[in-house]
Amino acid sequence: MKVAVLGSGMVGQTIGKKLVELGHEVKMGSRTPMNEKAVTWSKEVGKGASHGTFEEAAKFGEIVFNCTNGNGSLEALKAAGSKNLAGKILIDVSNPLDFSKGFPPTLSVCNDDSLAERIQREFAEAKVVKTLNTVNCLLMVNPSLVPGEHDLFLSGNDSEAKSAVHKLLESFGWRNIIDLGDISTARGTEQLLPIWVRLMGLWKTPQFNFHIARASS
Amino acid sequence: MKVAVLGSGMVGQTIGKKLVELGHEVKMGSRTPMNEKAVTWSKEVGKGASHGTFEEAAKFGEIVFNCTNGNGSLEALKAAGSKNLAGKILIDVSNPLDFSKGFPPTLSVCNDDSLAERIQREFAEAKVVKTLNTVNCLLMVNPSLVPGEHDLFLSGNDSEAKSAVHKLLESFGWRNIIDLGDISTARGTEQLLPIWVRLMGLWKTPQFNFHIARASS
Repeated sequence: MKVAVLGSGMVGQTIGKKLVELGHEVKMGSRTPMNEKAVTWSKEVGKGASHGTFEEAAKFGEIVFNCTNGNGSLEALKAAGSKNLAGKILIDVSNPLDFSKGFPPTLSVCNDDSLAERIQREFAEAKVVKTLNTVNCLLMVNPSLVPGEHDLFLSGNDSEAKSAVHKLLESFGWRNIIDLGDISTARGTEQLLPIWVRLMGLWKTPQFNFHIARASS
Repeated sequence: MKVAVLGSGMVGQTIGKKLVELGHEVKMGSRTPMNEKAVTWSKEVGKGASHGTFEEAAKFGEIVFNCTNGNGSLEALKAAGSKNLAGKILIDVSNPLDFSKGFPPTLSVCNDDSLAERIQREFAEAKVVKTLNTVNCLLMVNPSLVPGEHDLFLSGNDSEAKSAVHKLLESFGWRNIIDLGDISTARGTEQLLPIWVRLMGLWKTPQFNFHIARASS
C-alpha cells in the first residue's frame, strides 16, 4: 500500500521505516521538499522510501499518518491539503503537548475537546482514527518491547476505517486493541499523557504501557 | 485509629465500613448532623461506627477521608474546618467530574491544576494524599475483585503521610502502589477519569483497573 507519513521526527521515522519493512511504499512529508531529516531517512531506509512536501506525501498516500508535533498538526494537515485527505484514512498518533512552560507539559486542548476531534472537524471528509498516541514510538512498532499484556486504544467515527487500522496495527505486532468508540473518545487517550509523562519522569524510561485489567465477563 | 469519613454516598459508606471491619473507629460526616444515609449507615455497621456533621467528624478523626462529590469537596472541607484538618492526613479520593452537560462528564478542574492541588492550597496545614480515585468504590476496599496485576497511584507532598497511607492501603488489600510524586501528579490520575468513564460505558461494569506494564528494570 502507498502510505503518507507526515512528520520527519522520531515518530515519523520509526513508523515510516516499519511500514517499508512490511512492504509498503512510504513518502515522508515535511514543510519543505528537501527537509534534511526526511532526505537522510529516505536514503537510509532505501527502496520503498521517498520524501516530499506535506502536499506531495498526502497526494501519494492511500492512507495518511499524522506524525507531526501535535501543536503544529492542524497547520501541517492544511498544507497537506483537504482534498488530498478526503476519503482517506488519517491515522492521528500526535498529542497536543505544550512544553512552553517547561516540565510537566500541559495539553493545549483537552477535557471538552481533543486534537483528534479538531482534526476531524477541520477535515470532515477524512476518516480520522486516533491510536498509538499512548505509547513511545519504539513501542508503537514493536509492542513486545514491553512484556505481558498491555493495550492499545482506537477512536474514530468510521467503523471500516477502524477495522483497516486494526489490521495494520496487528501487522505491527499489536494483539490487545480496544475500540473505545467515536472520535470524541480520543479525549480519554490524549488525557493519558499527563500521567504518562510523570511515569516516564519517575522511571526514566518510556518503555511502559497501559493495560486495563478486568474481571472476566 | 479514629477516622473521619466525609461524605455519606456509596464511596463514604464503603470505605467507612471497611475501616470499621479493620478495627478502626469511624465517624461519617455530612452537611447536616442527622443525614439519613449516615444515620442508616452507622446503625447498620454498628459498633465502631458513628455519624455527625463534617465539623464533628473532622474533629474526631486522626486521619480524614474526603469521600464527598468532587464538585462540593472544597465547601465540605471548609465546613469541616481548617483547624480540624491541620496537621492531619487528608486522603482525597474524589474526582471533579461535571455531569451538568450529560454523559460523558467533563472535569471541572484539570490540565494545569487538579482538585487535589486546590484542596492542598486551601488547607495548607493538612497533609493531602490523593489516591483511590481511579477505581470504583467496591474495588477500593477489595482489589482482588479484579484478577491479575493492577495498580493504585499515590500523590502527595509529605513522604511520611504517603508512607502511612501506603500501609493503610495495604490493609485494604492493595499490593501494587505507585508513588507518582508530589500533589501536582494528581493531575495525571484525575485525568484518567475521562477514559475510565468511557471504558465503563463500553463494558457496562466498573470492575476494571489500570495496570502499567513495563520492561523489567
